Amino acid sequence: MLTSLGFVAPGYEDVLALFESFLAEDPHYSAQVAAYRDGVPVLSLSGGPGMDPDTLTGAYSCSKGVAAMVIALLVQDGVLDLDKAVVDYWPEFGVHGKDRLLVREALSHQAGLLGVEGGFGLEEFTTAGAALRLAAAAPAWQPGRQFGYHALTIGILMEELCRRTTGEALQDIYNRRIREPQDVDFFLGLPADQEPRYRDVLYEADAAQPWVDPLSLEGMNSNAPVSSIMELPNIRSVRAAGMSAAGGVGSADGLARLYAAATTGVGTDSPFLTEETITAMTREQVWGLDRSSGLDNAFAVVFMKPHPSRNFGSHRAFGHEGANAALGFADPSYRLAFGYIPRRAEEGRTQGRAHRLAAAVRRSTAGLS
Amino acid sequence: MLTSLGFVAPGYEDVLALFESFLAEDPHYSAQVAAYRDGVPVLSLSGGPGMDPDTLTGAYSCSKGVAAMVIALLVQDGVLDLDKAVVDYWPEFGVHGKDRLLVREALSHQAGLLGVEGGFGLEEFTTAGAALRLAAAAPAWQPGRQFGYHALTIGILMEELCRRTTGEALQDIYNRRIREPQDVDFFLGLPADQEPRYRDVLYEADAAQPWVDPLSLEGMNSNAPVSSIMELPNIRSVRAAGMSAAGGVGSADGLARLYAAATTGVGTDSPFLTEETITAMTREQVWGLDRSSGLDNAFAVVFMKPHPSRNFGSHRAFGHEGANAALGFADPSYRLAFGYIPRRAEEGRTQGRAHRLAAAVRRSTAGLS
Amino acid sequence: MLTSLGFVAPGYEDVLALFESFLAEDPHYSAQVAAYRDGVPVLSLSGGPGMDPDTLTGAYSCSKGVAAMVIALLVQDGVLDLDKAVVDYWPEFGVHGKDRLLVREALSHQAGLLGVEGGFGLEEFTTAGAALRLAAAAPAWQPGRQFGYHALTIGILMEELCRRTTGEALQDIYNRRIREPQDVDFFLGLPADQEPRYRDVLYEADAAQPWVDPLSLEGMNSNAPVSSIMELPNIRSVRAAGMSAAGGVGSADGLARLYAAATTGVGTDSPFLTEETITAMTREQVWGLDRSSGLDNAFAVVFMKPHPSRNFGSHRAFGHEGANAALGFADPSYRLAFGYIPRRAEEGRTQGRAHRLAAAVRRSTAGLS
Repeated sequence: MLTSLGFVAPGYEDVLALFESFLAEDPHYSAQVAAYRDGVPVLSLSGGPGMDPDTLTGAYSCSKGVAAMVIALLVQDGVLDLDKAVVDYWPEFGVHGKDRLLVREALSHQAGLLGVEGGFGLEEFTTAGAALRLAAAAPAWQPGRQFGYHALTIGILMEELCRRTTGEALQDIYNRRIREPQDVDFFLGLPADQEPRYRDVLYEADAAQPWVDPLSLEGMNSNAPVSSIMELPNIRSVRAAGMSAAGGVGSADGLARLYAAATTGVGTDSPFLTEETITAMTREQVWGLDRSSGLDNAFAVVFMKPHPSRNFGSHRAFGHEGANAALGFADPSYRLAFGYIPRRAEEGRTQGRAHRLAAAVRRSTAGLS
Repeated sequence: MLTSLGFVAPGYEDVLALFESFLAEDPHYSAQVAAYRDGVPVLSLSGGPGMDPDTLTGAYSCSKGVAAMVIALLVQDGVLDLDKAVVDYWPEFGVHGKDRLLVREALSHQAGLLGVEGGFGLEEFTTAGAALRLAAAAPAWQPGRQFGYHALTIGILMEELCRRTTGEALQDIYNRRIREPQDVDFFLGLPADQEPRYRDVLYEADAAQPWVDPLSLEGMNSNAPVSSIMELPNIRSVRAAGMSAAGGVGSADGLARLYAAATTGVGTDSPFLTEETITAMTREQVWGLDRSSGLDNAFAVVFMKPHPSRNFGSHRAFGHEGANAALGFADPSYRLAFGYIPRRAEEGRTQGRAHRLAAAVRRSTAGLS
Repeated sequence: MLTSLGFVAPGYEDVLALFESFLAEDPHYSAQVAAYRDGVPVLSLSGGPGMDPDTLTGAYSCSKGVAAMVIALLVQDGVLDLDKAVVDYWPEFGVHGKDRLLVREALSHQAGLLGVEGGFGLEEFTTAGAALRLAAAAPAWQPGRQFGYHALTIGILMEELCRRTTGEALQDIYNRRIREPQDVDFFLGLPADQEPRYRDVLYEADAAQPWVDPLSLEGMNSNAPVSSIMELPNIRSVRAAGMSAAGGVGSADGLARLYAAATTGVGTDSPFLTEETITAMTREQVWGLDRSSGLDNAFAVVFMKPHPSRNFGSHRAFGHEGANAALGFADPSYRLAFGYIPRRAEEGRTQGRAHRLAAAVRRSTAGLS
């Protein structure tokens, strides 16, 4: 009956049963799910074809939540002030009416810089050159007056703000200050020696999909002239560079452990973020119809906040979903951290498996307290 | 052929036919519907199992419209100014950045105070203690910058503003100044001697419903740790206390008569609200996606305004729908007042029976003028 | 196999194939489609019952885009300043809190003047009298704080701003400065000698449609007391007067040629609008849920902008759709202009035939460059 590998702490049997039901209803389904409570692993499961406990695969925009942890450290260090204008750190940004945009606005999808005509080269994404091209662009709306999901360019914004304030690459700070000391199995830039653990994300390349105009906002946002978003982590050079927006690769345990390390600390360690930093980073900045997708969205600084069609946690929860419906978040109300990565891209948002598993984990936690 | 009880004035036969069609298509359906024109009853019907002309049942958030009539009287008296800050009347409210929120903003779901962790006790809801807990809470968004339906706490806000400005309970003012002199068959606090008239609201307790996280905004908004909204009026102590948000109990005629008394006067009486008060209270304050539900909503001060998915009246109409799809409103353009209460909770909004009956009443009225 | 009439330039064969597939799948389908690239016609097709190359029929709100070309000329001339208040040109407009509304706000559906009680007479629409009635009205919301599609009254606003700034009727300016010199086969005011070319728009008069309350915002917006929007172009007096909002009549080639003349010039002519004017007129002003329809919309000054549920072009595209799903737009990114007019009203927005044809035209153009 038990088809998955891993362990479940007492009290979390309902989560196991739900995960087993997913495996039972679809022989092609495979995924990893993990959770920490109070810094202690309470759940780590993997199952289905091609998903072992050791497997790494793409987590798409869950990478944004990972990169945002570096931004949070800069805020905590006092080197980046969310209420300063972007131009205070990055003068070239101030053209085309973008001179008053605040850092917290730029990092909550209010800049209107969805992409550039012609797209960014895949090798260009994590470079200062990409940031210069983006800074020179005219925004799609009056900056700070609307918001729309910057699927890829928010990574460029985060990375350049790191460079300007520290002189260092975001990925390097992540490795040195978070991934290595916290032993987090999630990579912004997958080292060659980890490559054997990687398995491609599986997804339907729907031939019947309508054409995406590369010069439309949708096309610029998805970098359509160069590649499709779904391809990104499956390209070795992309996951090697580890673009903050969508190039991260890891395991579900890696995601969960990262959010635990940030908010509760893992084991006996202190959390690497203070309450004050968490509050500053996770206060909701925007809510409503998203100009990019036409769907409802809610964002804090980089992080997604729970809202009716993405209700992954309590009012204090924060995290990020990926294009494959992977999900990583922390929920301070429950002192929980959660990670989920499916191998085959699936439907996200409230009806998705990630959300159902997240609800089961919280419900089990509530039952224990 | 005629299965309902009551009367219909000449010209309103189409409304009767529509109500009869509802009864005919579903043997379990039962409801009351009533309308006044120019202060004269033109329609009062009841039909189906367990709904007599004399029956009282729960009307959920229609109670908000009833309580708002007391707020309107305070505005008319000059003791409550919609454009003053809440803290001008209630200093304890001014923590966590809520010190600039205006009364009209707080009463149009802009406060961001959807509930408290752990929930309010059912006996606590109508007390000053509940108001103090709510005042001490941090808002879910920057107050006055967004809106989201405060399913229960808007009642606490209304009640505390009454206490602070008059020293009296909202329910007492309602009884003394509205219900008794206007002979309105709708109760905020059902007296024991009226209990025999009460029949429980019937509703599907859907076992397959997803878990509501008590610490999510949805869970705090519905007071999930303590009870479900659908249960509320069926609990004797709740309908005895008559919480302004959802504890009201009455008949369809009661709702219609209240709105008539307010806007046209009943019979030869003058309306108890002036044109100026009606304008101040019923001007639309917010429109758009509601942060609580993710659906579109439009609110004046407390009252709902017609909008595409809740088009119950002319542009001057105002009222409130309940969780069971009960509906009470006035439509000054037609000098109409309307009430509808189903016994079994049903679907609300534009496609619902209440809206179809309301359209038939207005159409008949238009045909007569 | 080839059932349509007209021509297709090399490289646009896919557009022909798509149009032919529409004709093949529905024997009742008939329409015209046309496109210009760099001022040169690349496509002009007509097919299906009752649609010859020479046919004129109603294009409903595509007329708004046509009239907006006159507004653009006034802006270019310096006689109308989008950033001035409407009252600077039209003092009577300044009642009921409308005195601060800017021209660019009024012309992007932010005025809240959806109609008047009782409606406008069909002969009244294009008169200064209609403008005076509208100016005297109270707005449905605080002007400039929300937006909602003004289905008919935006025409009155455009026309009165013309009269006030030039003393001339918008339709006369259109004829003299645009239609005649540019030889555009689209009429705001169909001359008697063109009447033989006109064929009625076919549409389903759905008897099961719910009643539209003439005093609701929806009823005022559609002028329900007087007529239905779908009837308008089929009434001779309406198409003779050529109301800017919905009274235009033309061919698909007319629409395409107009947008080409404005943005690239036709043949060797210079475009009649400068880059600066195009930028000022086509910058997005509003985006989000539309108070009139409850659906998402995006508007520049008068013109529609592409957005997720109406993605007709690149981020620089601008144009207008009609109630019958006719579509006219220019896309400066591709140096394209496009027109589409079906004879039988059909579904619009992203899934509609107009959008699919528009995508095919852009895709073909992209393939050629």
